Amino acid sequence: MPIPETEKQTLLETFKAFLRIPSISTAPEHKPDILRAAQFVADKLRSAGLQDVHLMEGTGHPMVYGEWLGAPGKPTILFYGHYDVQPAEPLDEWISPAFEPAVRNNNIYARGATDDKGQVLIQIEAVARTMARTGSLPVNVKFLIEGEEEVGGESIEAYVKSKPARLKADAAVVCDSEMFAPELPTLCVGLRGIVYGELHITAASQDLHSGVYGGAAPNPLQAAAEIIASIKGPDGKIRIAGFYNDVQAPSDAEREAWARLPFNEEEYRQKEVGSKILVGEAGLGVLERVWARPTFEVHGIKGGFVGEGAKTVIPAKAVVKISMRLVPKQKPDVASKQLAAAIATVCPAGVIAEWKPFHSAPPCVVDTANPFIEAASLAMEKIFGNKTVFIRSGGSIPVVGLLQNELGLPCILMGFGLPDDNLHAPNEKLHLPNFYRGIEAVELFLEEVCKS
Amino acid sequence: MPIPETEKQTLLETFKAFLRIPSISTAPEHKPDILRAAQFVADKLRSAGLQDVHLMEGTGHPMVYGEWLGAPGKPTILFYGHYDVQPAEPLDEWISPAFEPAVRNNNIYARGATDDKGQVLIQIEAVARTMARTGSLPVNVKFLIEGEEEVGGESIEAYVKSKPARLKADAAVVCDSEMFAPELPTLCVGLRGIVYGELHITAASQDLHSGVYGGAAPNPLQAAAEIIASIKGPDGKIRIAGFYNDVQAPSDAEREAWARLPFNEEEYRQKEVGSKILVGEAGLGVLERVWARPTFEVHGIKGGFVGEGAKTVIPAKAVVKISMRLVPKQKPDVASKQLAAAIATVCPAGVIAEWKPFHSAPPCVVDTANPFIEAASLAMEKIFGNKTVFIRSGGSIPVVGLLQNELGLPCILMGFGLPDDNLHAPNEKLHLPNFYRGIEAVELFLEEVCKS
Repeated sequence: MPIPETEKQTLLETFKAFLRIPSISTAPEHKPDILRAAQFVADKLRSAGLQDVHLMEGTGHPMVYGEWLGAPGKPTILFYGHYDVQPAEPLDEWISPAFEPAVRNNNIYARGATDDKGQVLIQIEAVARTMARTGSLPVNVKFLIEGEEEVGGESIEAYVKSKPARLKADAAVVCDSEMFAPELPTLCVGLRGIVYGELHITAASQDLHSGVYGGAAPNPLQAAAEIIASIKGPDGKIRIAGFYNDVQAPSDAEREAWARLPFNEEEYRQKEVGSKILVGEAGLGVLERVWARPTFEVHGIKGGFVGEGAKTVIPAKAVVKISMRLVPKQKPDVASKQLAAAIATVCPAGVIAEWKPFHSAPPCVVDTANPFIEAASLAMEKIFGNKTVFIRSGGSIPVVGLLQNELGLPCILMGFGLPDDNLHAPNEKLHLPNFYRGIEAVELFLEEVCKS
Repeated sequence: MPIPETEKQTLLETFKAFLRIPSISTAPEHKPDILRAAQFVADKLRSAGLQDVHLMEGTGHPMVYGEWLGAPGKPTILFYGHYDVQPAEPLDEWISPAFEPAVRNNNIYARGATDDKGQVLIQIEAVARTMARTGSLPVNVKFLIEGEEEVGGESIEAYVKSKPARLKADAAVVCDSEMFAPELPTLCVGLRGIVYGELHITAASQDLHSGVYGGAAPNPLQAAAEIIASIKGPDGKIRIAGFYNDVQAPSDAEREAWARLPFNEEEYRQKEVGSKILVGEAGLGVLERVWARPTFEVHGIKGGFVGEGAKTVIPAKAVVKISMRLVPKQKPDVASKQLAAAIATVCPAGVIAEWKPFHSAPPCVVDTANPFIEAASLAMEKIFGNKTVFIRSGGSIPVVGLLQNELGLPCILMGFGLPDDNLHAPNEKLHLPNFYRGIEAVELFLEEVCKS
């Protein structure tokens, strides 16, 4: 049902209140904010009319659960999302502060706007509106909203792997991805996996003066550079033995569908990336490179001195933050071991290099031949007025692999973000019309699923 | 004159008071501490009996000047030192806090203990004791103590280059170096030069999510690694075109003298460096590598995320802190331009790399055939009871090149630090017996110079 303007104002205020909570899951000092965000979700679920709403607390950040099972004989949809967000650094690059949501040009700017608070609210508000309008829902629904998505999702992984009866459902809806282009309804049917960890390089027993020891003492930053440059070259090829063995290329049909997508490489380079040129493996299109090829990326290098001015230190140790994105049918455990072996092979003499993986998620592809995908496709098409396209995403949503592999649930990735939403970066945003149409689309999806 | 125990206590308390001032020259927030340290030096010079003591303030940190010219017909010695110190990071590796001096095992631990507050006090206290004992000095003395040594010494460079009449002298004494080994009086007769700067690498217009853009977006940390690894390899050779052209090898006589020094490479590796092996150019001894060969060292790499946990960011830019140590007869300007050209040559496509030099100092060798070197050698020999050795230092003391080149002063580098003093590192120290013997040696030097 179309949302009237007055109601949009109310929805926006709720959205802002959610965004004001700095629920950064990787920062221990934000634990109280994590709890506030979980309570916020629980309160919203309760006021939407869900039952058995409660926090599931364990060793990590709590998951929020809620259900409505008043449609016997009808399918059960499990909604998934996460209330935790990425750190906001670098803070000085935000135009308005990360946790003071601001609306500019029909976009709302704040950390978590698109990833994933806005999309969590889309799901809850859709249920709330249907319930408010009809007093019930056309299908059964369950909500499982976690607070550790940005830090590896240990709690939800353990929980889902225990195969709890409570999570029994017919399909899962995950709203944590983006539309391929503005106005183009999109279902994401493939995700890259990930292995994230740290490379610890130890050179000396203490920091040393580069004047006194330079020329004889090993430098762990130099070693880090040599290792990184050995593992990936300027050609974009990852030189880890065996790394590409299990990579499954996309089908010809998929490649052809991607070629038909409205994609302007030059515009993508200029407006989204903002780089001189695009890089990566030669002979492959950009979409294939970011959706269907594995990566090796360095996210930060710690060690030595990076403050104002000059310090002539040879640091005793360095730590390199690294991720590898994986594609079907690579396995995280195998890739992590291959990387460890590659590091051992290329590590220069004089330092000790140790690979410490933090967390991982398998890649996955979703089988498109099911009624839930069809219902979602139809619902989005009706709201946005354009034919729904099927894409993949280069990101990793570990829970999708979990729900598919552990619970056998087909996952419907209805994403309402846009490619320029700056997720994980300064000035993250959500396009407000997509917030409202997302709610309408999920409402319609519930009706369509009921018919199928 | 030997220092009695009661007087040692007084000297130690003065030393501690000096060390408690966190006069970190690179940190703008420590500007008041810089001023306090300068005032401390001025007060000490005044109470030692020097005249015309005053701070010379310009745009940077003040220099402190003082003189005593009551020995007409006798030589004039210019004493140089610096009251500023390096940052204390990483703070958590200090056994006792960096600015709370603590005595353990006859060593005093604090930032600046050996570099250079202890050695500045050695000079002032030697003059103070002579003056207190005899009511005058055997030679004329001038003091020039600066506060920017750790940040490039811009003020003193400009001042010395103006060739002020006030600095007219017959020789300069610089106490800012170390003894080759405990109990082994040492004169340093060669220093490496330095070029210090930052490599700025720009890849994209903003930070990007590695899931969404990994495989197409350039990563400035990857580019940094490729550039660093291209410029120096695991063989320790610096691959900058023309870089070694002007390098002057030490003479055979100097190499033979070095070979006679009490140097145990295995002990040096284990106790001083604490690394698995020593690295560097093959076929050259350790002393030649650290004294007479140029270096390329990375001191820190800024960009991306290095906090606790995981953040999957491809940073928009990265900054690499780099120094090159230079040896006779390399020229800082030439080396800096060669590095810029090398960076341009090896910079991978997709990023913009820009070399921004901060400051530099020329390398220098001191001519040993002069009466001041002889007086210093004799004075130290008498106090320490061992024959004085001539060494070089791998570090850079820019002022030595300045005083030699601009004012034509022979520089006497009487250093009282020890090789394990941890300068620029956590747990910096000075061996207290060297503090007291240093004062006695400088006293004796003044007498010996008078005779020559």
